[in-house]
Amino acid sequence: MKFIIRRDQLIASVQDVMKAISSRTVIPILSGMKIEAKQHGITLTGSDSDISIESYIPAEEDGNVNVEHIEEGSIVLQAKYFPDIVRKLPENTVEIEADDNLKITIRSGKAEFNLNGQDAEEYPQLPKMQTDDNFEMPTDLLKSMIKQTVFAVSTMETRPILTGVHIKLENNKLTFTATDSHRLASREIPIVNGSTEFSSVVVPGKSLNELNKILNDTEDAVEISVTNNQILFRTRHLNFLSRLLDGNYPETSRLIPDQSKTTLHVKTKELLQTIDRASLLAKEERNNVVRLNTQGDNQVEITSNSPEVGTVSEEITVQSIEGEELKISFSSKYMIDALKAIEYDEVQIEFTGAMRPFIIKPANEDPILQLILPVRTY
Amino acid sequence: MKFIIRRDQLIASVQDVMKAISSRTVIPILSGMKIEAKQHGITLTGSDSDISIESYIPAEEDGNVNVEHIEEGSIVLQAKYFPDIVRKLPENTVEIEADDNLKITIRSGKAEFNLNGQDAEEYPQLPKMQTDDNFEMPTDLLKSMIKQTVFAVSTMETRPILTGVHIKLENNKLTFTATDSHRLASREIPIVNGSTEFSSVVVPGKSLNELNKILNDTEDAVEISVTNNQILFRTRHLNFLSRLLDGNYPETSRLIPDQSKTTLHVKTKELLQTIDRASLLAKEERNNVVRLNTQGDNQVEITSNSPEVGTVSEEITVQSIEGEELKISFSSKYMIDALKAIEYDEVQIEFTGAMRPFIIKPANEDPILQLILPVRTY
Repeated sequence: MKFIIRRDQLIASVQDVMKAISSRTVIPILSGMKIEAKQHGITLTGSDSDISIESYIPAEEDGNVNVEHIEEGSIVLQAKYFPDIVRKLPENTVEIEADDNLKITIRSGKAEFNLNGQDAEEYPQLPKMQTDDNFEMPTDLLKSMIKQTVFAVSTMETRPILTGVHIKLENNKLTFTATDSHRLASREIPIVNGSTEFSSVVVPGKSLNELNKILNDTEDAVEISVTNNQILFRTRHLNFLSRLLDGNYPETSRLIPDQSKTTLHVKTKELLQTIDRASLLAKEERNNVVRLNTQGDNQVEITSNSPEVGTVSEEITVQSIEGEELKISFSSKYMIDALKAIEYDEVQIEFTGAMRPFIIKPANEDPILQLILPVRTY
Repeated sequence: MKFIIRRDQLIASVQDVMKAISSRTVIPILSGMKIEAKQHGITLTGSDSDISIESYIPAEEDGNVNVEHIEEGSIVLQAKYFPDIVRKLPENTVEIEADDNLKITIRSGKAEFNLNGQDAEEYPQLPKMQTDDNFEMPTDLLKSMIKQTVFAVSTMETRPILTGVHIKLENNKLTFTATDSHRLASREIPIVNGSTEFSSVVVPGKSLNELNKILNDTEDAVEISVTNNQILFRTRHLNFLSRLLDGNYPETSRLIPDQSKTTLHVKTKELLQTIDRASLLAKEERNNVVRLNTQGDNQVEITSNSPEVGTVSEEITVQSIEGEELKISFSSKYMIDALKAIEYDEVQIEFTGAMRPFIIKPANEDPILQLILPVRTY
């Protein structure tokens, strides 16, 4: 195997593929990166069994030459040193060569690295997916949906299914839902071009976080296909494959109250900053509690009390308060996460009493929904 | 105590003073920050017994009002929460008030924090220093001298005196020297306006690192005074006091060879990048070794070998090689540190054989000197 490649292209691909490679893998060869050279281009592969990423660099694209002098072949190299080597090479092109004894030579300018490689035949085959049943959506919208829900997955392994995001495609509606049983985040969008439906797909939150880091913020389509135990996200030069979580995701729709006793309209940023300040005195306690009291028809008081340190209080003027007076306590962290996910400058908060879950939505009625369970403080 | 202060000024001062405050102090009140209000301005104080920092905010300066409505007094507040509180307050001014019961109120806009304070009388008095015997130097030059030497202090407590930088002022020459016994860094500058001399002052490396972070990169003077066990750095609004290390600093001048058998002139950046690349395959081993071989009169080969991973080699063209041929091995980390400290685009390296310490100097003969002991590889 031999080829000469543009260094900037190689850096970008290596960076993406590294997201799937862990140095603490139980299958030693998976600590390596597979490089495969074909006349049409170079494919890099990384995997930790849960996530597999393939990045493709075409030899030519849009009239630009990315890779030259290709002699086909494949090799696995130790991934740990490769990103730094590529990043620090002196010239804009890199020559990579592997001989029959699995010796790899990396040359750029007068610098030469000789590395020990491993046989690509020993690298596990990625599962081939039936990708006829798929649907497409804009990449930036997928990123938004991930960001608006994935933070609410559980980090506890006591109910493993809750560490994933539930994805459902039914009646041309795609829904993402995540909950750790103290709060819930969900978002729904219409899908028009889908040739598939599914209702019980749960993708590990970790996979979606890595996917979100790799995807560019572009309107270009990402194609999504699902089988029994895998989900594939495919863009022009990237295949991102994740295993699915086993088990039944709990029915969450009945958690969501369908009526409200107190409704607040408030500027997102103002409420966010006020709650952020109120939470300052209790840094250590993870889900530190703040209290919200309505006052008349457009004032809300936010307070917090940390016995050893002191107290905070702040009043904010809101757009409107409708319905009953309310005193309610909740985790400032959950509220801050929810408000950050809303991505809209005014929110509507619907309460059904101090002991019932409440809902936060963008005031524009976009189908984003954040739900938080209050905290008993007496 | 009561005053209203510009928030940006308060943020900057709090940030500086926090550098001296440790949450793991054995004297509980030192986890707090002392605030003292006088009609002419506000003084913030932090200390961890080793370092003490006082930052002064004048009520008026250059026609600008920084502090208003001052009622004199003092208090100690819990430092841990204070920086975040000040940074996140909603308005450009902050009102701080302490009552006779040591209750502190911080107000900005509609936000109000009530904190428990401690009696400023219980805060340890900083030692008053005789500051008649002092000298001045430009702040940016002091920062340079610190950066060029402090990295070479020892991090091992086996010889505590080597964890400090040796500072000497004699015959109108100020010298900073640091060594961990494997390498040495020193810099000398002329001082014209000094009313003092001293020869055995050793300042903890940690103190100088913190000082370097606080000082602005300005030509304004910093005034330095020394007593038996303290050193004081004073700028317009800052007092930085550090204890000195006890003990005799070793005589280092005899370590420095006064002749050379091989002299290299080379571009600093080129050598630095080549050695950086050669060190890539041995990330874990702390002081990983590279080998330098002269080849003819203007080629140098840098190589490195990590048995399990592979080898690196690179040739660079240097400006000149004078004297004997040379093969020498040394720690790439020490060489990289030394080259970074030089701050000049060409260096002169003087070797006296493969087993003797060698010297790295800027090619412009500035009195910066870096010395490295080679490594035996056979």
